[in-house]
Amino acid sequence: MSDFFKGIEPIRYEGPDGANPLAYRHYNADEVVMGKRLEDHLRFAVAWWHSFAWPGGDPFGGQTFERPWFGDTMELAKLKADVAFEMFAILGQPFFCFHDADIRPEGDGFAGNTANLEEMVDYIGAKMEAVGTKLLWGTANLFSHRRYMAGAATNPDPDVFAFAAATVKTCMDATHKLGGANYVLWGGREGYETLLNTDLAREDAQLGRFMNMVVEYKHRIGFDGTILIEPKPQEPTKHQYDYDVATVFGFLKRHGLEDEIKVNIEQGHAILAGHSFEHEIALATALGIFGSIDMNRNDYQSGWDTDQFPNNGPEVTLAYYEILKAGGFTTGGTNFDAKLRRQSLDPEDLIAAHVGGMDVCAKALKSAVAMLEDGTLERLRAERYSGWDTDDSRALLNHATLEHCEECVRDRPIDPQPRSGRQERLENIVNRFV
Amino acid sequence: MSDFFKGIEPIRYEGPDGANPLAYRHYNADEVVMGKRLEDHLRFAVAWWHSFAWPGGDPFGGQTFERPWFGDTMELAKLKADVAFEMFAILGQPFFCFHDADIRPEGDGFAGNTANLEEMVDYIGAKMEAVGTKLLWGTANLFSHRRYMAGAATNPDPDVFAFAAATVKTCMDATHKLGGANYVLWGGREGYETLLNTDLAREDAQLGRFMNMVVEYKHRIGFDGTILIEPKPQEPTKHQYDYDVATVFGFLKRHGLEDEIKVNIEQGHAILAGHSFEHEIALATALGIFGSIDMNRNDYQSGWDTDQFPNNGPEVTLAYYEILKAGGFTTGGTNFDAKLRRQSLDPEDLIAAHVGGMDVCAKALKSAVAMLEDGTLERLRAERYSGWDTDDSRALLNHATLEHCEECVRDRPIDPQPRSGRQERLENIVNRFV
Amino acid sequence: MSDFFKGIEPIRYEGPDGANPLAYRHYNADEVVMGKRLEDHLRFAVAWWHSFAWPGGDPFGGQTFERPWFGDTMELAKLKADVAFEMFAILGQPFFCFHDADIRPEGDGFAGNTANLEEMVDYIGAKMEAVGTKLLWGTANLFSHRRYMAGAATNPDPDVFAFAAATVKTCMDATHKLGGANYVLWGGREGYETLLNTDLAREDAQLGRFMNMVVEYKHRIGFDGTILIEPKPQEPTKHQYDYDVATVFGFLKRHGLEDEIKVNIEQGHAILAGHSFEHEIALATALGIFGSIDMNRNDYQSGWDTDQFPNNGPEVTLAYYEILKAGGFTTGGTNFDAKLRRQSLDPEDLIAAHVGGMDVCAKALKSAVAMLEDGTLERLRAERYSGWDTDDSRALLNHATLEHCEECVRDRPIDPQPRSGRQERLENIVNRFV
Amino acid sequence: MSDFFKGIEPIRYEGPDGANPLAYRHYNADEVVMGKRLEDHLRFAVAWWHSFAWPGGDPFGGQTFERPWFGDTMELAKLKADVAFEMFAILGQPFFCFHDADIRPEGDGFAGNTANLEEMVDYIGAKMEAVGTKLLWGTANLFSHRRYMAGAATNPDPDVFAFAAATVKTCMDATHKLGGANYVLWGGREGYETLLNTDLAREDAQLGRFMNMVVEYKHRIGFDGTILIEPKPQEPTKHQYDYDVATVFGFLKRHGLEDEIKVNIEQGHAILAGHSFEHEIALATALGIFGSIDMNRNDYQSGWDTDQFPNNGPEVTLAYYEILKAGGFTTGGTNFDAKLRRQSLDPEDLIAAHVGGMDVCAKALKSAVAMLEDGTLERLRAERYSGWDTDDSRALLNHATLEHCEECVRDRPIDPQPRSGRQERLENIVNRFV
Repeated sequence: MSDFFKGIEPIRYEGPDGANPLAYRHYNADEVVMGKRLEDHLRFAVAWWHSFAWPGGDPFGGQTFERPWFGDTMELAKLKADVAFEMFAILGQPFFCFHDADIRPEGDGFAGNTANLEEMVDYIGAKMEAVGTKLLWGTANLFSHRRYMAGAATNPDPDVFAFAAATVKTCMDATHKLGGANYVLWGGREGYETLLNTDLAREDAQLGRFMNMVVEYKHRIGFDGTILIEPKPQEPTKHQYDYDVATVFGFLKRHGLEDEIKVNIEQGHAILAGHSFEHEIALATALGIFGSIDMNRNDYQSGWDTDQFPNNGPEVTLAYYEILKAGGFTTGGTNFDAKLRRQSLDPEDLIAAHVGGMDVCAKALKSAVAMLEDGTLERLRAERYSGWDTDDSRALLNHATLEHCEECVRDRPIDPQPRSGRQERLENIVNRFV
Repeated sequence: MSDFFKGIEPIRYEGPDGANPLAYRHYNADEVVMGKRLEDHLRFAVAWWHSFAWPGGDPFGGQTFERPWFGDTMELAKLKADVAFEMFAILGQPFFCFHDADIRPEGDGFAGNTANLEEMVDYIGAKMEAVGTKLLWGTANLFSHRRYMAGAATNPDPDVFAFAAATVKTCMDATHKLGGANYVLWGGREGYETLLNTDLAREDAQLGRFMNMVVEYKHRIGFDGTILIEPKPQEPTKHQYDYDVATVFGFLKRHGLEDEIKVNIEQGHAILAGHSFEHEIALATALGIFGSIDMNRNDYQSGWDTDQFPNNGPEVTLAYYEILKAGGFTTGGTNFDAKLRRQSLDPEDLIAAHVGGMDVCAKALKSAVAMLEDGTLERLRAERYSGWDTDDSRALLNHATLEHCEECVRDRPIDPQPRSGRQERLENIVNRFV
Repeated sequence: MSDFFKGIEPIRYEGPDGANPLAYRHYNADEVVMGKRLEDHLRFAVAWWHSFAWPGGDPFGGQTFERPWFGDTMELAKLKADVAFEMFAILGQPFFCFHDADIRPEGDGFAGNTANLEEMVDYIGAKMEAVGTKLLWGTANLFSHRRYMAGAATNPDPDVFAFAAATVKTCMDATHKLGGANYVLWGGREGYETLLNTDLAREDAQLGRFMNMVVEYKHRIGFDGTILIEPKPQEPTKHQYDYDVATVFGFLKRHGLEDEIKVNIEQGHAILAGHSFEHEIALATALGIFGSIDMNRNDYQSGWDTDQFPNNGPEVTLAYYEILKAGGFTTGGTNFDAKLRRQSLDPEDLIAAHVGGMDVCAKALKSAVAMLEDGTLERLRAERYSGWDTDDSRALLNHATLEHCEECVRDRPIDPQPRSGRQERLENIVNRFV
Repeated sequence: MSDFFKGIEPIRYEGPDGANPLAYRHYNADEVVMGKRLEDHLRFAVAWWHSFAWPGGDPFGGQTFERPWFGDTMELAKLKADVAFEMFAILGQPFFCFHDADIRPEGDGFAGNTANLEEMVDYIGAKMEAVGTKLLWGTANLFSHRRYMAGAATNPDPDVFAFAAATVKTCMDATHKLGGANYVLWGGREGYETLLNTDLAREDAQLGRFMNMVVEYKHRIGFDGTILIEPKPQEPTKHQYDYDVATVFGFLKRHGLEDEIKVNIEQGHAILAGHSFEHEIALATALGIFGSIDMNRNDYQSGWDTDQFPNNGPEVTLAYYEILKAGGFTTGGTNFDAKLRRQSLDPEDLIAAHVGGMDVCAKALKSAVAMLEDGTLERLRAERYSGWDTDDSRALLNHATLEHCEECVRDRPIDPQPRSGRQERLENIVNRFV
């Protein structure tokens, strides 16, 4: 045992009135709602990168965290893994997520990276067994190294495409070996800084082919997890190709991938794209491509990804409401792609952030369940569209022509009268439950 | 002749050094560049609504303009048309555009609207012949009347769907009769104010069916213009389904319409969606759905549609560069969906705004031509991707697997070295021409 | 009695578990917290304009509401007042607010406006007495009429300045007569559309003089309410001079008004200026110019003023926390400058919106009280700065020179070590109470 | 001579038609306009940090640049200085700017930093003499080191305040010794991440005292340059106290500093605060606190500081127009606080970026001169306000009361008629010159 979390006991559920800052007030893993344990509904995952690999820098300042495992050796990578699993034991969450670059030191080129990764996968696999934490998803970091500065799959240099493809293979292998439930691709450099040096059609073709290679490989190795694309509109680049859920859907359709790939949606990315989180989730479920979520909020007054732990209960409730309405997670889950503020230096901050985030989510999920079970919202929604549930309306939708519509409007005649949309009353209903 | 523009003579080209505020300094309609007259490149159109129907109101203030044709009678609608064609004669632009509600008074229900529309179409048709101005596109206003407050095609009430469909039919008929080159659909109310009362999947099915009805009708009547959707992310509603070019593409693919419908792109709408204008144009051309443009800018410090006349030459140059690079307009053109500022009360303001806008566009088009003819930018772009133009690279793109990539990376081995993206040098090249 | 609200009974408090949509679940007016009744803490006011005068239009669509009092006669203005006080009786809130243009029809120039206003003031005064509702503040609408299109006090035409000044006098007289607790100035047109026609220094001098005239008049007539400026960064104009709290403070200092005028802060305006609501409140209390609030939120995904009823409890809690921490309202209060969505057509929507808004505020205020009484947040804040509470530190702050600091740093030597800012832990504390 | 810029000759002026990418097309240093040489109008300065110290990282990726001087030794710091002055000789710009942390390696605490700084100041002083480049301004980096993570002057720890004060003293000494024309303070950490742990009033008092110490010290040592504050609304922190020009003005007034400190305005910071660059300049000149500019643009589609070289001529023209209208720079100048894109790896990119930026500015300044000399814009502006230039109007502005205004409005009577604001015509005038 390292002594990084010395003095911090495993977090227990102590009920909503507790004042113990290091206890769950809402997350009672075994509590059953809608026929499932909270743990199985929420499927929490800790993200390796922000929690263990991020040094606390920002564009105007350097490292603030001083972690005993910072450095670029295998020994330190193993210490980092040790501390990570100590935290998993403290929190008791069921899953974690990682990029290759989070868990292994940078090696000497591709071969070095792969060797380091494989050794760490074995090391982590043993820890997973010991602690009982599972892998929600793995992914490849195709954005930090300077070789990717102009893109990975969309790079103008085919060597980078090949290097990225080879790297994804190693990361899919690692994820498969560790029993991951999903594999994620976030295209942080798949986009452009200036249109002046960019060929959109070429880069689209490259990205489409790359994703098809990933899907083909998945089937070849028998990986039965879900392949997920994580949309983000911009940052680090000026424009990213996986802009938002609607854009990713169009991309998948264009390349014949709409039945093979789903989306991992992040609140902060939704906000940057001009959407609410619940919009992106609702759209993905309507389009049949909802997969998983990254539960980290942005600051509404900041124009970049702040990746903060969730803290606004009513907002989180609306997100889980859309997920539950669509049947809940299957392979997906609630990943905390959330980072401490760079001034939050203490080990206790890291624990408290996760405890607070899990509690906000647990309370929100219960509120969402209560809204669904109450049923008023869904009854009112169905009533609003009930005019479409007649045979005539169905015929109108399925077979009508403009000429036929004109006849109807002239002959009946039709003079539609607006009806209240009741927005404030619906918002009041939500507020009964949050 | 009305005396609205009394004292204002037809605008002539007087060359770049002229100080006459009511002369063209750059728009010499008959000047030939890249084998085409400027008029045929730019295909300018005046928009009926902002130029003749908008009263100068905003959310905090009422009408500022006092036009002799304001009011809701057929007589005033004809006076409005008279003045419009007087302006077309002064400006000499080849096209105009309209909504039904711009050119006819509101009638008594559908039948009344249709009768008014038909009478005005005949009136306007005669003027078109007399003045020689053509119709770039027609469209139906499916957003101003309270019956559309919850959507037209996506309304929860099937009667509104039918009413909207019938109205579109009359507008397509009008457009067809007037020889329109395109027919546009802008879904200003196709979206939502709150997810709480909205069924995204239902509304998507309704919108998809509606658009198919439009396309089927077009073919039935032998209208050979292009059907165009105009993307806008929001405003008036919180979220609109035709968010941006990428979103519209996904919608078209989903409903089998990608070969039937193209996009009409507006600078202000691009900005509201988080994109540059040239991005939206370049994306549409890459996806094969570019149709036409609305040449009105937004203010970068305002979060709503300001619909201003274009005035920034370098920005407009980049837009035309993308259009020319893709072959120029076919049925589309440059519509000024631009409105005077509400303090610009004088008839001369209306003329000056169009003269200034046309001149900015004409100069920008010539700059774009010069950049294309110089060729440096395109040569550098092609060089940047030239690594993909070998047989090996093509094979990589077309047939590779992740395993094959891994082998290559290991065996050669591949260690890609980044190359400068040269952004500043490219921007300097642009500045040689603007 | 009109029958507009027919069938709707006065709203009663039924406790937090009630499911009655037309009952208060949290607003128990007589409940005492921190030594004051909830009614006296919150000081709710209904805004005449959005609730009774706004027709439901937006920039892309016309009127959706059909109210029996719409129209421009004294008779209808009185019917509007009748219905307003019927709603006040139903809601039981203690205050209302108005612009002159909300309560009187537009008259024939200044004299006509004044005569109409005076007659309505008498009419409303009698109703106030009957129902028991008081006036939180009055104000003049200096932005809707076309005469103000280029500003009121800051207009390039001195006649407009005079007209606006005369109008403000009549509105201050009306407010004084009705026993108003404050008088508000919102400079919706005090700003510019383009710098190209604007003289910032001149307009600043005009606005400074205008505000001094208001303050002088207040003292002359013995009005003992507070004069309030309402900041807003933009909309309707591109730039408004009362941009935000910090900008207004600088303006007040520049014109010697910092002890005479305070601010009325609106959540939506704070958001448009890039601030959180609680920031603007906290800044105003730190600068000694906090006055009152407009409790209407903006939509975070819309770039304009949506003026919606508050509905996010945790956010509202942080606002009241700052207010209570600074001692609570004195003459100010919680005005609902909030409007129904334009699809919310029914009288019940209007009642439900206010009931929901009042309940969100009441619950939030109680949460804020609980946080203050718990004291943990304030204790931690004080501890964080406790290093400044020594004599040495006070001397450093009051008398030190750069040279002295250099000596200290060299001699002791000083090598400061960062301490955790504990942001996540503080956010978790807040979540115990909301 | 290092060989970093090997093969690149000093940049010469070759006229506007030149195609040589490494020549000036507009910046002819000795050309005289409005009675001054271009060099003396523009007063270009190169920024040490972005050009020589920034490694090419962003929040999602590490270093891309590989400069021979990267590293933390005095030897490398001197090599960096050598290359910097080689670039100055190539560009021929008259000034440079620096932070302490740009030019010296991080030392062992304060004493180490100071010793390193002093040695580098001597080294650089000799180079300045040799090459003839002068110092526009110096500044202290009070934001990158972790000791400043919670602020410098506004830190809750008085030791940090003292450390920052001592550091500023050393940087003011360095600036004085090198003959700097100004001294700048940018408060990148003077703000907050969360209000929950922040005491605004305390931090304002600390910052006010700190700035007074700086001013007192300036006078004590006889530094006759200008003290400048650089506003920025946010980034790195959520909220920064020097939000924008208006906010800084209020701060200066509050602490009695309005005659002692001026502002250094950056285009990108203006944009982040919701303003145009020309607005911030015009406001600063109207308030009498304009000092200098940082000429780096932001990308309008990115919500963070992109710090790019200027490239849009018409926009830059409006900025210089405001500066020239107010009399031009005195001690201030045009600093390129602009960074290469992180993909721009080549030494030639660094030269080309500055050449392009200088040329855009030079052309823009000449356009601004032409607009001023033409005089139409200023004549129209003056005419618009000419109603205020009568004795009656002056009396109205200086002595009127609300009662007096009411009398005038009733008696004459006054019924103001709006006049066109002519925005489009003014924008067309600008377009004649850009």
